[in-house]
Amino acid sequence: METKKYTFSTEIKVRDYEVDVQGIVNNARYLHYLEHTRHEFCDSIGYSFRDMHMQGYDPVLSRAEIDYMTPLTLGDTMVSCLNIRRRGPRYIFQQDIYRADGVQVLRALITVVILHDGKLSRGDELQSAFGPYLSNNDR
Amino acid sequence: METKKYTFSTEIKVRDYEVDVQGIVNNARYLHYLEHTRHEFCDSIGYSFRDMHMQGYDPVLSRAEIDYMTPLTLGDTMVSCLNIRRRGPRYIFQQDIYRADGVQVLRALITVVILHDGKLSRGDELQSAFGPYLSNNDR
Amino acid sequence: METKKYTFSTEIKVRDYEVDVQGIVNNARYLHYLEHTRHEFCDSIGYSFRDMHMQGYDPVLSRAEIDYMTPLTLGDTMVSCLNIRRRGPRYIFQQDIYRADGVQVLRALITVVILHDGKLSRGDELQSAFGPYLSNNDR
Amino acid sequence: METKKYTFSTEIKVRDYEVDVQGIVNNARYLHYLEHTRHEFCDSIGYSFRDMHMQGYDPVLSRAEIDYMTPLTLGDTMVSCLNIRRRGPRYIFQQDIYRADGVQVLRALITVVILHDGKLSRGDELQSAFGPYLSNNDR
Repeated sequence: METKKYTFSTEIKVRDYEVDVQGIVNNARYLHYLEHTRHEFCDSIGYSFRDMHMQGYDPVLSRAEIDYMTPLTLGDTMVSCLNIRRRGPRYIFQQDIYRADGVQVLRALITVVILHDGKLSRGDELQSAFGPYLSNNDR
Repeated sequence: METKKYTFSTEIKVRDYEVDVQGIVNNARYLHYLEHTRHEFCDSIGYSFRDMHMQGYDPVLSRAEIDYMTPLTLGDTMVSCLNIRRRGPRYIFQQDIYRADGVQVLRALITVVILHDGKLSRGDELQSAFGPYLSNNDR
Repeated sequence: METKKYTFSTEIKVRDYEVDVQGIVNNARYLHYLEHTRHEFCDSIGYSFRDMHMQGYDPVLSRAEIDYMTPLTLGDTMVSCLNIRRRGPRYIFQQDIYRADGVQVLRALITVVILHDGKLSRGDELQSAFGPYLSNNDR
Repeated sequence: METKKYTFSTEIKVRDYEVDVQGIVNNARYLHYLEHTRHEFCDSIGYSFRDMHMQGYDPVLSRAEIDYMTPLTLGDTMVSCLNIRRRGPRYIFQQDIYRADGVQVLRALITVVILHDGKLSRGDELQSAFGPYLSNNDR
């Protein structure tokens, strides 16, 4: 886990209620971790989800691709990392989650578009906030 | 929505607590709907998730690809549909969700592998249950 | 389970993802079942949560008392029942959940107040909708 | 908020997906915060929920009483505090949650019993772990 190659990373501890009857974190919970990581990133650059929402901008998912590699379980802590790039109206988050010991848990590509008062926007409003953090490298 | 072209379909009503502050069903909830639909399918063919789990077989996701097309909101009802095919140890569920009025909400490809006592199995044990329902058509 | 003595009852099937690592439905999920039951009741009398919310009325919990009696698990179906009474601005839902075989799962007293545009209301607006369903018997 | 009068307290940040369409944290989520706080306490005294579960001991709720006082919303951080006392087989957690600015969000009494291999235990096994932290003061 070389967090240096990511624009942002945050540590998240598994909460015991997130673990299902199979003894592993339920597959849907990872979408929550991924969303929480994106929102923590927005917080960190001073433009929170709350601010966006108050101004009428709502980021919504248009596509998610997730490879589940190693499950998390009770007591685990993860490091959740992201890079961003832009393709026209779409912001694409490349997100990786690692267990505290460095084993990769998941990799995801999350495509987000921005609604403005409920309608699809061109995404230009977020350019000033996200611009300095956009990367060009595809994977 | 031609449910005839699906192996299985079930109706699900949005529960109000599933709608987030944006006024739409939160992106992670759809993973719950998709899982619930797969499990309802297993129920319908007489081999429930509970049965599998009791016998030491645990289906887990290895990959999810989801295209979010139209959001669901308060009061909506959906029809959630699936087809299955097999690729070696992997069962691939092609899943589509439609709003009650026929508008497509989401399409997904969910790849599931089967753990047996915690280890990856070849998936042969489920062949007898799933066999009659496997389709050959890719999309 | 004499559902006749309740103003409203609805059947809910446990979804497998609601079962936690202990093999039983997680304690917080019951709050979801209870909320869903109240909202289904509102739907049934023609005044949905969505309608209320659109008109600026938001029911919120002020108190919950829950006795957990028998846990639900994979594959279970429940019957969720309620009665309502009013105490000034407070609507008090007496809610009982039974497993399909009649064993009682839970009993709860849920006190709800109505916010109007974010401020505590006297609750009179809902009187016309709820009035015919209010019971006088305390327990 | 005088955290000194509590045996344990922990800070939790609201995750945006926990906020529902009413713009406030959904009532069921607080049960998650309360559970997470109890489990963090167990972690802090060196006897984690995972350890208990591995040894066949499963804490389960028998009763919850919750007064909802001030709702949490997007961007809020809370301090979640607890005291414990014992009444025979029951461990009673007095739990209070405060917003970061000190306003009280919620107060709760959560009664937990311990199952051992699925059967109600007398709770004596946890006495050695919990003993030093039990308080005598009722409220």
